[in-house]
Amino acid sequence: MSRINANTKGVFVIAATPFTPDGKIDHNSLDGMVDFYFDKGADGLTILGMMGEAPKLTQSESLAIAKQIIKRAAGKPIVVGVSAPGLAAIGELTKAVMDEGAAGVMVAPPGNLKTNEQIITYYANVVKTIGEDVPVVLQDFPLATGVSISSATMGTIFENHPSIVMLKHEDWPGLQKISDLRDAEKKGRRRVSILCGNAGVFLPEEMRRGADGAMTGFAYPEMMVEICRLCNADQYDKAHDLFDAYLPLMRYEQQPALGLAVRKFILARRGVIAHASQRQPGADLSPTAQQEVIFLMTRLEKRMAEIS
Amino acid sequence: MSRINANTKGVFVIAATPFTPDGKIDHNSLDGMVDFYFDKGADGLTILGMMGEAPKLTQSESLAIAKQIIKRAAGKPIVVGVSAPGLAAIGELTKAVMDEGAAGVMVAPPGNLKTNEQIITYYANVVKTIGEDVPVVLQDFPLATGVSISSATMGTIFENHPSIVMLKHEDWPGLQKISDLRDAEKKGRRRVSILCGNAGVFLPEEMRRGADGAMTGFAYPEMMVEICRLCNADQYDKAHDLFDAYLPLMRYEQQPALGLAVRKFILARRGVIAHASQRQPGADLSPTAQQEVIFLMTRLEKRMAEIS
Amino acid sequence: MSRINANTKGVFVIAATPFTPDGKIDHNSLDGMVDFYFDKGADGLTILGMMGEAPKLTQSESLAIAKQIIKRAAGKPIVVGVSAPGLAAIGELTKAVMDEGAAGVMVAPPGNLKTNEQIITYYANVVKTIGEDVPVVLQDFPLATGVSISSATMGTIFENHPSIVMLKHEDWPGLQKISDLRDAEKKGRRRVSILCGNAGVFLPEEMRRGADGAMTGFAYPEMMVEICRLCNADQYDKAHDLFDAYLPLMRYEQQPALGLAVRKFILARRGVIAHASQRQPGADLSPTAQQEVIFLMTRLEKRMAEIS
Amino acid sequence: MSRINANTKGVFVIAATPFTPDGKIDHNSLDGMVDFYFDKGADGLTILGMMGEAPKLTQSESLAIAKQIIKRAAGKPIVVGVSAPGLAAIGELTKAVMDEGAAGVMVAPPGNLKTNEQIITYYANVVKTIGEDVPVVLQDFPLATGVSISSATMGTIFENHPSIVMLKHEDWPGLQKISDLRDAEKKGRRRVSILCGNAGVFLPEEMRRGADGAMTGFAYPEMMVEICRLCNADQYDKAHDLFDAYLPLMRYEQQPALGLAVRKFILARRGVIAHASQRQPGADLSPTAQQEVIFLMTRLEKRMAEIS
Repeated sequence: MSRINANTKGVFVIAATPFTPDGKIDHNSLDGMVDFYFDKGADGLTILGMMGEAPKLTQSESLAIAKQIIKRAAGKPIVVGVSAPGLAAIGELTKAVMDEGAAGVMVAPPGNLKTNEQIITYYANVVKTIGEDVPVVLQDFPLATGVSISSATMGTIFENHPSIVMLKHEDWPGLQKISDLRDAEKKGRRRVSILCGNAGVFLPEEMRRGADGAMTGFAYPEMMVEICRLCNADQYDKAHDLFDAYLPLMRYEQQPALGLAVRKFILARRGVIAHASQRQPGADLSPTAQQEVIFLMTRLEKRMAEIS
Repeated sequence: MSRINANTKGVFVIAATPFTPDGKIDHNSLDGMVDFYFDKGADGLTILGMMGEAPKLTQSESLAIAKQIIKRAAGKPIVVGVSAPGLAAIGELTKAVMDEGAAGVMVAPPGNLKTNEQIITYYANVVKTIGEDVPVVLQDFPLATGVSISSATMGTIFENHPSIVMLKHEDWPGLQKISDLRDAEKKGRRRVSILCGNAGVFLPEEMRRGADGAMTGFAYPEMMVEICRLCNADQYDKAHDLFDAYLPLMRYEQQPALGLAVRKFILARRGVIAHASQRQPGADLSPTAQQEVIFLMTRLEKRMAEIS
Repeated sequence: MSRINANTKGVFVIAATPFTPDGKIDHNSLDGMVDFYFDKGADGLTILGMMGEAPKLTQSESLAIAKQIIKRAAGKPIVVGVSAPGLAAIGELTKAVMDEGAAGVMVAPPGNLKTNEQIITYYANVVKTIGEDVPVVLQDFPLATGVSISSATMGTIFENHPSIVMLKHEDWPGLQKISDLRDAEKKGRRRVSILCGNAGVFLPEEMRRGADGAMTGFAYPEMMVEICRLCNADQYDKAHDLFDAYLPLMRYEQQPALGLAVRKFILARRGVIAHASQRQPGADLSPTAQQEVIFLMTRLEKRMAEIS
Repeated sequence: MSRINANTKGVFVIAATPFTPDGKIDHNSLDGMVDFYFDKGADGLTILGMMGEAPKLTQSESLAIAKQIIKRAAGKPIVVGVSAPGLAAIGELTKAVMDEGAAGVMVAPPGNLKTNEQIITYYANVVKTIGEDVPVVLQDFPLATGVSISSATMGTIFENHPSIVMLKHEDWPGLQKISDLRDAEKKGRRRVSILCGNAGVFLPEEMRRGADGAMTGFAYPEMMVEICRLCNADQYDKAHDLFDAYLPLMRYEQQPALGLAVRKFILARRGVIAHASQRQPGADLSPTAQQEVIFLMTRLEKRMAEIS
């Protein structure tokens, strides 16, 4: 059982939750999907996040999925999204998944938080509820949550709670925030791991600014793995060559709400999951959109052949 | 087992959830609180709403509370709040409480809904998830949810779903919406029950506009019962005399977030619950605020003696 | 030419802007309205605020109104609302009205501010734009602006900018904020004047917590004047007696958006302005709503006869 | 004097407003910038939009800029952004710029609109205020305005107001909306021109879905011109080849708030404007960010050499 910490690096893929066309959890696809992510080089997975359709699951379903994935991961770290409107639900799910061997939990701020003080108090309550021994990922995603966390507020939270060891970084624009956090660490603040989201659309710049890797669900995790490797080796031009090949598709997959349908469509075409289906309610990918994605996938393959 | 329907009238008190000072559910106070509400004339209760600290409960706690209250109510109707970010949780909790004998469920729209079309689709998904046989209360509370439902949108929802039998009305301003709905019914749209919230601060005007009663948690339910009775008897001046006596306290209790602390403080002073405690996190009532409430309670008693 | 400062006390009425039924500024009513406010005991006026329909005016109209009112006020202080999306417009209007003899300007935060840091920077930019010699009222009205300013953030702003001499207080709930500010002053922070808004619905409690008066547009300014006098004389029970008589109407006038129509309707019935008209677009007062207001005005007169 | 209409096609560049480092309008750069845009193939310009720092201008400055640009454009169409919190300001500015020879005005919905009905009423009020003879561009940019306009609502607005001849399309995701509008036109609704924003990051797909061109301010307008040409000639693969070369930079320029600094930095490096300066307050481009942009510009040049 491995746990994340402030020095964790690499690529944690946000895992999809496969469903059958009639809305049942596709447990058959789950193991294969986990294998696929790790075969492509993922260092860990994050499950039951926004893109994992977590709110469409009952708690018993959530636990069953977590259990199966943690088992299949065979010791590789699995972070579990536990964001919920109330602390009781967060506490209950956290205890259950940590007991199963999760590597940590991820918590986004609820949308009713306004002032810096309210945000700081919220994370104090979270840590108090789940215990100081559970590693926490702070998810900073203002576009989805509506909550803006300044660099200074984030610093206060990190100083207050050593168990918050990682930032899932997806503010937009967000590059300066990485620089701010790393600058503060140079002046003595304790280190946190920074893994970046937003479908990877700023990954090379984020790595160069000091990020430790990626935590997002782009359907080609091998791209993220390779870009992190190249950036860590200071081969930025090569990293951008690869990045540029994937960017047209990443941009398409980053579209809010629609993005999950795109992601599942690609994963299904790649044979990773049996069906692109989302559980209802879910935005369908129209035939026109499917053609657009296939067009981009074909161009990607052609471009990859050119640059490799 | 009684169920609500489109002709339900009267006062449904939004029930508090009593806790002990150390944050445990105060099951000992629960039965007495239920008895108190019915002794004061309530026609039914609504539980596990925003003011019932529902998000602070685990699902097993929610069910235990619902079970105890439904049993104690001995056949009187209990509406259960089931609002949640995802449909699966709504479906699961609805099934459980309806099996226990609930009179119906209440659903507020999630904050991410924007257009009329999205709101209409959401309620279609809710009804599909829980089944067309479960009576539903649509909670219209834009100040808390951030979702504005126009009179026309509401009309479409009522026309689409006969199982949505009641509106918990707490838009602000909201009087025109009652008139709009009743006008549409005169022109042929099916009737819905309208029970009003907002701590009762517009109750006489709402009754005169065509509301069927109140659904709110003001700590003096006897006031709501009597105002409904007087308005139904067209004794509006008497209704306002009573209303005016309570209004200073209602206004104080209506304060967002702080209101629940006020409500529980009064209920505890009235001997209805053993402790004013909220489960953490909860806004405390400062000593100064406590003095202000006691001052207003004392003035209320004096005024009641004058007008009775 | 008098200017507001950190010790300003009393009642500043938020002035309406009278229009003729065809949408022209009713300059004939303006002087009489100014006289009415001062006859009823107002210490000053605040013009071109949200309730003054400022956004419906062209800048030349705004200036013409300001000029006429400042002249008619004959030395009594006139605060001018200058909130705008951009600093240039704020700077331009401020210069113009200060040249005319305004007592200061009022600025609410624009809705796109999120973090404490952004709010603090915004007011620094405002003060830099208009100059440090112009007295500023900070309007704290989260329900209308969407911006939440914590007590600590407000303290920082007051410490940074001596020219921000007054708070128009209308957070809701907001009593604790008054206590917080006064407590900080006891520990050494410089004093600011606190005048309270929200149609006066918490005025007695606000005065007791340390407010200096009222800044709101309730159509019976004599009530605000008298309550401030009674509270300053520690006659709180008498203050509440008066307050309770007006509260049913204040509550009705406090309704968002609709409130201005109510206010103008009452002012017109009291003979203060010739027409209740708002410039388009403006929410009309329906015949039913008019009857409700007249009913409450009649009850107020009766109650005033009883308690006087 | 040319005016836009429902058949207008091509590229309308959102023009920057050049400032000197001390915050004065750089009138010397203005003419050259206008020439640059038209030399690169622009069909028209849109000025005084969000990216033109309009809220930082006084009205007299706005008019002076509009006058100079309309004159320099020598008959080419200039659309002027007139969005403002109040209708009076919209009416006043519209009259002034149409008198100067503007091709039309652009209006985004104010952030307080919620329901479909409110949005529809708002545009009715706009058209009534400015007159039915002024061509209007409806700007649909939910990420910036907070207002979501459904395809059906947009259709109602277009049906109600023939003078609203163009959609500035920048919903995200927004491709389906183009398809929805074109589908409705096939069934009989009158045609509107659709020009697309969002820095061009979906331009090839938007053209293929039926858009008429672009209206955005990406610092390489020649790219937009060429992509529109290629798409109109059904040369989609070539269009994507070009698009892919620019996408890394477009993505960087699309960052909210920061984007304008990036755009001006590139325009200054390209010699189009003398200074990258924004009028205060404006987000500066940090030295690190400048390096990132230069890195991307260098890669773009290299890639353009490869594919041409």
